[in-house]
Amino acid sequence: MRLGIGVIGYGYWGPNLARNFGAHPDCLVRSISDRRPERRELAGRHFPHAAIIADDSALAATDVDVVAIATPACTHYELAKRALQNGKHVWIEKPMTSNSDQAKELAELAASRGLTLMVDHTFLFTGAVSKMKEVVDAGELGGLYYYDSVRVNLGLFQHDVNVIWDLAPHDLSIMDHLLGPSAQAVSAQGRGHFHTGLEDVAYVSVFYPDNLIAHFHVNWLSPVKIRRTIIGGSKRMLVWDDLSQEEKIKIYDKGMQVTTIEGIYNVLATPRVGDMTAPVVPFTEALSVEVDYFVTCVREKKMPFNDAQAGLRVVSMLEATDRSLREGGRIVELRRD
Amino acid sequence: MRLGIGVIGYGYWGPNLARNFGAHPDCLVRSISDRRPERRELAGRHFPHAAIIADDSALAATDVDVVAIATPACTHYELAKRALQNGKHVWIEKPMTSNSDQAKELAELAASRGLTLMVDHTFLFTGAVSKMKEVVDAGELGGLYYYDSVRVNLGLFQHDVNVIWDLAPHDLSIMDHLLGPSAQAVSAQGRGHFHTGLEDVAYVSVFYPDNLIAHFHVNWLSPVKIRRTIIGGSKRMLVWDDLSQEEKIKIYDKGMQVTTIEGIYNVLATPRVGDMTAPVVPFTEALSVEVDYFVTCVREKKMPFNDAQAGLRVVSMLEATDRSLREGGRIVELRRD
Amino acid sequence: MRLGIGVIGYGYWGPNLARNFGAHPDCLVRSISDRRPERRELAGRHFPHAAIIADDSALAATDVDVVAIATPACTHYELAKRALQNGKHVWIEKPMTSNSDQAKELAELAASRGLTLMVDHTFLFTGAVSKMKEVVDAGELGGLYYYDSVRVNLGLFQHDVNVIWDLAPHDLSIMDHLLGPSAQAVSAQGRGHFHTGLEDVAYVSVFYPDNLIAHFHVNWLSPVKIRRTIIGGSKRMLVWDDLSQEEKIKIYDKGMQVTTIEGIYNVLATPRVGDMTAPVVPFTEALSVEVDYFVTCVREKKMPFNDAQAGLRVVSMLEATDRSLREGGRIVELRRD
Amino acid sequence: MRLGIGVIGYGYWGPNLARNFGAHPDCLVRSISDRRPERRELAGRHFPHAAIIADDSALAATDVDVVAIATPACTHYELAKRALQNGKHVWIEKPMTSNSDQAKELAELAASRGLTLMVDHTFLFTGAVSKMKEVVDAGELGGLYYYDSVRVNLGLFQHDVNVIWDLAPHDLSIMDHLLGPSAQAVSAQGRGHFHTGLEDVAYVSVFYPDNLIAHFHVNWLSPVKIRRTIIGGSKRMLVWDDLSQEEKIKIYDKGMQVTTIEGIYNVLATPRVGDMTAPVVPFTEALSVEVDYFVTCVREKKMPFNDAQAGLRVVSMLEATDRSLREGGRIVELRRD
Repeated sequence: MRLGIGVIGYGYWGPNLARNFGAHPDCLVRSISDRRPERRELAGRHFPHAAIIADDSALAATDVDVVAIATPACTHYELAKRALQNGKHVWIEKPMTSNSDQAKELAELAASRGLTLMVDHTFLFTGAVSKMKEVVDAGELGGLYYYDSVRVNLGLFQHDVNVIWDLAPHDLSIMDHLLGPSAQAVSAQGRGHFHTGLEDVAYVSVFYPDNLIAHFHVNWLSPVKIRRTIIGGSKRMLVWDDLSQEEKIKIYDKGMQVTTIEGIYNVLATPRVGDMTAPVVPFTEALSVEVDYFVTCVREKKMPFNDAQAGLRVVSMLEATDRSLREGGRIVELRRD
Repeated sequence: MRLGIGVIGYGYWGPNLARNFGAHPDCLVRSISDRRPERRELAGRHFPHAAIIADDSALAATDVDVVAIATPACTHYELAKRALQNGKHVWIEKPMTSNSDQAKELAELAASRGLTLMVDHTFLFTGAVSKMKEVVDAGELGGLYYYDSVRVNLGLFQHDVNVIWDLAPHDLSIMDHLLGPSAQAVSAQGRGHFHTGLEDVAYVSVFYPDNLIAHFHVNWLSPVKIRRTIIGGSKRMLVWDDLSQEEKIKIYDKGMQVTTIEGIYNVLATPRVGDMTAPVVPFTEALSVEVDYFVTCVREKKMPFNDAQAGLRVVSMLEATDRSLREGGRIVELRRD
Repeated sequence: MRLGIGVIGYGYWGPNLARNFGAHPDCLVRSISDRRPERRELAGRHFPHAAIIADDSALAATDVDVVAIATPACTHYELAKRALQNGKHVWIEKPMTSNSDQAKELAELAASRGLTLMVDHTFLFTGAVSKMKEVVDAGELGGLYYYDSVRVNLGLFQHDVNVIWDLAPHDLSIMDHLLGPSAQAVSAQGRGHFHTGLEDVAYVSVFYPDNLIAHFHVNWLSPVKIRRTIIGGSKRMLVWDDLSQEEKIKIYDKGMQVTTIEGIYNVLATPRVGDMTAPVVPFTEALSVEVDYFVTCVREKKMPFNDAQAGLRVVSMLEATDRSLREGGRIVELRRD
Repeated sequence: MRLGIGVIGYGYWGPNLARNFGAHPDCLVRSISDRRPERRELAGRHFPHAAIIADDSALAATDVDVVAIATPACTHYELAKRALQNGKHVWIEKPMTSNSDQAKELAELAASRGLTLMVDHTFLFTGAVSKMKEVVDAGELGGLYYYDSVRVNLGLFQHDVNVIWDLAPHDLSIMDHLLGPSAQAVSAQGRGHFHTGLEDVAYVSVFYPDNLIAHFHVNWLSPVKIRRTIIGGSKRMLVWDDLSQEEKIKIYDKGMQVTTIEGIYNVLATPRVGDMTAPVVPFTEALSVEVDYFVTCVREKKMPFNDAQAGLRVVSMLEATDRSLREGGRIVELRRD
């Protein structure tokens, strides 16, 4: 039996979800809903066999097994909650919810009902992130020192969220995937330059045990597009440039050697330099891989790694940035409960 | 009459000072002093006609008009104070002193004696920074939104100062030169990974009026060398890549146009895209230009722009980063007195 | 009345033609033909309202006004000839034909029947080539000295043509478009390394009046992908890097100043250096622009600039490279008749 | 006993020779000669203990064991011949002589007298070329397919030689070092755009057995500086970018896999893609390494690899480019005698 899919929201990302679920041999797109007539008209042309609807009735439709939610973030909680209450599996866009209480509630609801709730952190399914996960997990970098991420461009402004909630979920979810769930605290600085007052340039720090520090520069006002992450480790260091076609990931056999020399200009540590390797990063359409993984998790009642808890961790960090911004960049502890 | 120059400290930077003062037609290197015999031996070979000495007697020597101090930062205050008290003009390496009280005292001493005290912020004399100063002052960028600087590499560790005191003086002095002296507050985050506990990775924010935010990433543990500053303005945006041979500065005729569209995915502002221009950046040996400027200031009793007040501002910001680091990244106001 | 389009050949490029003709408001895709059942099956799914056929009957179909030929080059001549004889306008892939006699015959046939025959040199309709045409025609570069093009990558080998016939048509047509139709002679060198003996690495020179020299490096065996053309002029110089996302075209205000200095190491000319500008290159889907232009030419009986004569010139140059390769790189004059 | 060195010619390169010989513990710069008073004045300041002379008397001076010739190429033959006749070892700048007859005569003279005659192909002693030599000799690239070199910039024009004789000696000597002495034939195309008629843009092909083809683009009129060599092999491919600071050499585990598929668009060979590695290239001041190697060869009566025969091979190829240019790019066989 194929899984019946109900896609809710057919704006920027919804069509990609519908297309990838539609192409999966184990899925059938049963319905697509959007409040805007022109989006329904488009959906109708793309999916002549699906029900095209204006309301949320898919949440309760008997032929729908999976609700895929691609509406604005402020509506995620309500829609996902009703879907789970109706016994549907849920695919939800990032950020999972608007606050961590909501995320926690959804996580518990899904767990108690035995339903799959997966947060669409698409980047986790790219060849580049998979390769980095492999490298980090194998210990190739040694102990980690820092994680530095820059995601800037001249971008479309959202009118309802700041640049952190818009861009950082990508990087926070990747960081969480690579470094694990032990983040302890968050700090943020930012400024907005237009009348909404929402930050359009921001800097976020995340603190881990053992002096591991992560830092994110997100910016809607950059004349150049940069997508670069550097991970410094005790054995090796890695640079991920997502805009590079042929050398997305470079692994440097470099590090510091601690030495002790007497004198007034004492050198504490000196650089150790070795070869650089750019491993082959297989090209995979991330969303297609992710849809297949989701279907497997539903079928085999397996917990996805990008589950509700992963979504909750990201939302908790975003929430902490709000508080830190309000309190002058103070370090805000992440709650553990 | 030529100016007699006494160079104190012949380690990493002292030889460059001696060479450039030595090559200036209005200067004569009278003495070079260093405590280390092997450095004195080297100085003697390079400057056979100068007195090569082990002590600080140049501070009081009658044939010395200018004392150029290139010793470790912690000795700057004492040496400069005695030189000024003896009526010598002073050229001092960055950072000017170890704290702002010292810097203030030197500034007042120089002012009261009518002596030139100049802090060697060499970068201000490069073709690239001169060009940026010209562009910013001409209003070509419009109102400024942000100043983002990255200075990272796999570097030699200092045993006595953290990465902020080592690398950020360059960028803070350039920022101060370009944006003016109105910085209001500072915040910093960082971590150290070796036994000294000194930060080797750090992030500094500096806040200006009108929501202008500056940010600095300084890092001794990066596998790649990056020297890049982005300045975002309301009319144009600028990228300075100091490692580029032929296109150090790029000016983008780009910006955001504020618009208002109704709907749930309202766009607040949309990108405006225009040509990019990389102006010719004349190659000048910065130190040679700076020495010539110093001599002119001394001769004409002109206040240099990189004077004691400029040095004090940089030291005050460095000092504020120390406090912010200790207090969890709190925003620390810069004192005005 | 809409133009009826018959697409012949539904392999690599045919689907793009069908899609773009299909999207044009003045066109209707009447039929798609391909000998391979699996390609017909695909065409049927994409174009449910078109006739999907296995033979060449579109060449004579009454509802077909335009035959778009996207079959292997060796079949172009025969198909285009019959289409023209049947009074159809013809859109033909590059290279136009297998030799210049065929190209000439088609050009004359189209002219005598008053039919539009256009060769699909798609690159001519990109934003980058349009911008270069504008710059060159406005005289911004001054008199031209050279045109140097590199098109290399690790590529699929064709079994029936060498790398020149595969890759160089792009560059020769761009050169012809930018420099005009006055090319006088051609020389080529190359080597093949696999059992077919077809060249997989080759270098082609084309000679114009006034010492203007053009040169092409085409290569199927390069580990890196390069798409770069440099045009040197007496006033300015231009670099086109087609792989750059944001700075495809750079115009350098650089040149040589002729001077005369006596002495044994006389310098004849010294560099003159000025600003570089990267103009905005509007993103346009080239094929869509080209289809619209083709329709306009047919409607208004206007001669397209990429007409049969342009196609003939490119084929003549390709033909001359074959001869030069056989004769040890000898310069082969291009015939004028 | 130290070797007494006589440097002849103190223009652009002579000072580097004098400095490096002067710094070698086994050498003593006995004399420096130049016809120009201002160069002698400079030499006198740099080398207060050497005899500064205006004539060629060093060729016969009893305290001179080695004559280092850094005069214009047209004078090399005469000076080297007299030096060898007087029993001096000879260090000679590139190109070795103005024609191959001269080079051959010098080679025979040096051999018959048992003297060391070394041609200063400095690049052969860089870390990058040493690394490439190692890689090629170890067979890591497999059988070689092609060698493609680009050396272009906006350059000083020489008034007496074309761009090939000015720039290509570097690349021809590197090629000869890496690929061995089996080059069979040469072809060249070029154009000049100033009144001397000397080519300022040129392309040279060199042919080896087994379809190995080498190609060189040399250009004084390029707005951008490019120093890039690609070597394609059956097992791996290599790119040398001499302007890259940190990744001068990249080795690609890429190649073509020969396959046979039936059909009209048959693919002959498909790409095989693997990791890229940028090995550490140790920084070495090439000239200092070369001087030390020369001294060792003289002391141990060892034949240097950049001996007179190597210099002769380069001159023979340069000579062949002249002939090919005159004869319309015809392939000119390299003589074997």
